[in-house]
Amino acid sequence: MSQDDCIFCKIVSGEIPAAKVHEDEAAIAFLDIGPLAEGHVLLIPKAHARTVDQLSASQAGEMLRLLPAMVKAVQAATGCQGVNVLQNNGRVAHQVVPHVHFHIIPRNEDDAFGFNWPAGAYDEGRVDELARAIRANL
Amino acid sequence: MSQDDCIFCKIVSGEIPAAKVHEDEAAIAFLDIGPLAEGHVLLIPKAHARTVDQLSASQAGEMLRLLPAMVKAVQAATGCQGVNVLQNNGRVAHQVVPHVHFHIIPRNEDDAFGFNWPAGAYDEGRVDELARAIRANL
Repeated sequence: MSQDDCIFCKIVSGEIPAAKVHEDEAAIAFLDIGPLAEGHVLLIPKAHARTVDQLSASQAGEMLRLLPAMVKAVQAATGCQGVNVLQNNGRVAHQVVPHVHFHIIPRNEDDAFGFNWPAGAYDEGRVDELARAIRANL
Repeated sequence: MSQDDCIFCKIVSGEIPAAKVHEDEAAIAFLDIGPLAEGHVLLIPKAHARTVDQLSASQAGEMLRLLPAMVKAVQAATGCQGVNVLQNNGRVAHQVVPHVHFHIIPRNEDDAFGFNWPAGAYDEGRVDELARAIRANL
């Protein structure tokens, strides 16, 4: 399942070079060429899927069982103080390449990447309504 | 493996209530009580681990095989236009509760949550040095 015009499918096939750090049957990982920090890695499934909801449970599990070792290796190689794992689905969520990818982003004090955290609160009863609605769709 | 003073271990045990949307042997998912958007879900392993690198490969795989269905259900229940999956390791990466958790954050145009994307570039040869260093730690 590859898609002709997908840059990440071309990295999977070898048509476009990348600084790979891992490859197995389900997934590859390589350095992001436009890094948010030194050692910013992308972990992607070999099979083409635009967003994470389009993966099967086994595709997700097989790829993401690599995450602990990958985060540990990025920490060891860069000496970073923390790591964000970020996966963006849809343009509004800042997805640029339409092939599922998990960003592994090394973090340090006063680095360039960051986000806000505008935590809200629920009105009485609303959280239970939403929980029911999500359960009904699982 | 639970930890006495961990709020998420207390949610796992039922000592602290939560609006759960899923529970199985490996993981639970529930609504974040301080949501970045309506329907903001946390997916966590039942076993206590502070950061994702402390999970075993099978713990990560068993929990994260749920991610496609969970993202799909959050999208269906909220009608959001996109979703960020975010997992923070360490204070510098905005981790607050010291028990691994994956944020599933519904996104829409002009919503409250957001991040910058200060993409950099590598000097000649540096990307290959980093790839070697990461591979050496895998």
